[in-house]
Amino acid sequence: MAEPKLEVLNPSFIEHLEGYTSQSGIDGYLGVRVVEFTAGRLVAEFEVVDDHVTFIGNMHGGCLAALCDHCLGVVLYPVMPPGSWAATTEFKVNYLRPVSGGACRATAEIVSMTKRSAVVTVRVENDDRLVAVAQGTCTVKLAEERTDTG
Amino acid sequence: MAEPKLEVLNPSFIEHLEGYTSQSGIDGYLGVRVVEFTAGRLVAEFEVVDDHVTFIGNMHGGCLAALCDHCLGVVLYPVMPPGSWAATTEFKVNYLRPVSGGACRATAEIVSMTKRSAVVTVRVENDDRLVAVAQGTCTVKLAEERTDTG
Amino acid sequence: MAEPKLEVLNPSFIEHLEGYTSQSGIDGYLGVRVVEFTAGRLVAEFEVVDDHVTFIGNMHGGCLAALCDHCLGVVLYPVMPPGSWAATTEFKVNYLRPVSGGACRATAEIVSMTKRSAVVTVRVENDDRLVAVAQGTCTVKLAEERTDTG
Amino acid sequence: MAEPKLEVLNPSFIEHLEGYTSQSGIDGYLGVRVVEFTAGRLVAEFEVVDDHVTFIGNMHGGCLAALCDHCLGVVLYPVMPPGSWAATTEFKVNYLRPVSGGACRATAEIVSMTKRSAVVTVRVENDDRLVAVAQGTCTVKLAEERTDTG
Repeated sequence: MAEPKLEVLNPSFIEHLEGYTSQSGIDGYLGVRVVEFTAGRLVAEFEVVDDHVTFIGNMHGGCLAALCDHCLGVVLYPVMPPGSWAATTEFKVNYLRPVSGGACRATAEIVSMTKRSAVVTVRVENDDRLVAVAQGTCTVKLAEERTDTG
Repeated sequence: MAEPKLEVLNPSFIEHLEGYTSQSGIDGYLGVRVVEFTAGRLVAEFEVVDDHVTFIGNMHGGCLAALCDHCLGVVLYPVMPPGSWAATTEFKVNYLRPVSGGACRATAEIVSMTKRSAVVTVRVENDDRLVAVAQGTCTVKLAEERTDTG
Repeated sequence: MAEPKLEVLNPSFIEHLEGYTSQSGIDGYLGVRVVEFTAGRLVAEFEVVDDHVTFIGNMHGGCLAALCDHCLGVVLYPVMPPGSWAATTEFKVNYLRPVSGGACRATAEIVSMTKRSAVVTVRVENDDRLVAVAQGTCTVKLAEERTDTG
Repeated sequence: MAEPKLEVLNPSFIEHLEGYTSQSGIDGYLGVRVVEFTAGRLVAEFEVVDDHVTFIGNMHGGCLAALCDHCLGVVLYPVMPPGSWAATTEFKVNYLRPVSGGACRATAEIVSMTKRSAVVTVRVENDDRLVAVAQGTCTVKLAEERTDTG
């Protein structure tokens, strides 16, 4: 199936993030680490820790929702000109199986991209089982459109 | 528009949660506090703190996604028999405006409920502006169906 | 909850559509009739006929999906300048109950609107029972942005 | 990525549908034809005709929504015991590009399946361009659970 032809416009973003584990924000709460990063594709994961698990014994679904939202936006940065922004404007997630431990690894792929927006799909695996699928839209804001920069 | 007739089957759940602020889990990371709780309707909120805000200056969308996911499940507990479980199986969220501070207040309402599942809508306000709408499905697991209890 | 302040910019669109039953297109296949039309709110319905019902005895879900998609776009026309276009770019629907006859009445409401896009929610009733809820995004194309006009 | 292991339980369904073009229902309105059918995967398409196109010159999005909804359910029949039912309970679709002619070909794949439900993803191509992605849930009703059979 034809995929969009994407080019890395911001290679330093990849250099800085590959192998990096978030230290702050909701991605820092989860402990998201970037595993692989290429044009239009991001693999990122976090280890399930006790605080992610609810009294039922399964991980809180919100952890996967936040992971998907995070990857939906981050996957765009390498293919946007430096100084641009991306923000998720909507997404949908289906949880397929409960998660109780191990690592949750998301693979995000850009399936369509214009100057102003992109559609991204995400698949999350937990120890080789598919546990969630998501798809959503990100809005792209190019550096030259930002009126708030000095 | 006709709403489902729902009855409180687990009043102690409401008593324990009303006014309570989550101390652990992703809801604890956010600092979610239950404001109002009735049959089929939950109002819960959190204060936006620095750690929720990304380098762009806006709150990470994952915080709203996690809030919506959390409320989707919690709103069901009072109307299920004690010992039952609810878990979000899918949801979709649209972010309407960026959030940079103040409180995010979610109102979750059950729009349909059977023995096994419920559909819930959520609206999130930030200082009286609507900032997100969500809808999704929760799976209900009644206490008597749980085979793992001793 | 604060709703967007919307103004009718294209009153003749309302005049032409109120009471009108679609004669062609997928909305014509369904037989969609516009019942009420105000700034930011559209009520439209169709009668379930034999061809809408599958071999299971229930209406094909695609009929409700098409109705929601249709209303998501049409609700925008009165509040856009004449000559503008609106097209659904994404939506999500939850079917709440099976439908086997009677009328399906959708109420679409704009919950957020900018120059370029709007988020709309839809509720569908079948003989006073809520049978579907949807939410989605429409892209707005203003007349002056259209480069294909002569 | 690990996919569910699915087995054909109803081979005659495949035999009857492969190559078949719907003659009635909303799928008949579209003219949906089953192109390929295997365990867990369905390819189906329709030709865009004048009645599918709106006054804007693009196909009505509802046609793609109805196609996705249709494929979401139909893909399940071969892997359910004969006499079972499947019905879409929720789905989400992103439209990626406008369609004005040619054929719309959907590829539906089951990504997760239990006794009672399945999650399915759909990709729609129009002349080798990806024009829509969808994902949703179907409820499965096994023959032995149906209480309405004589």
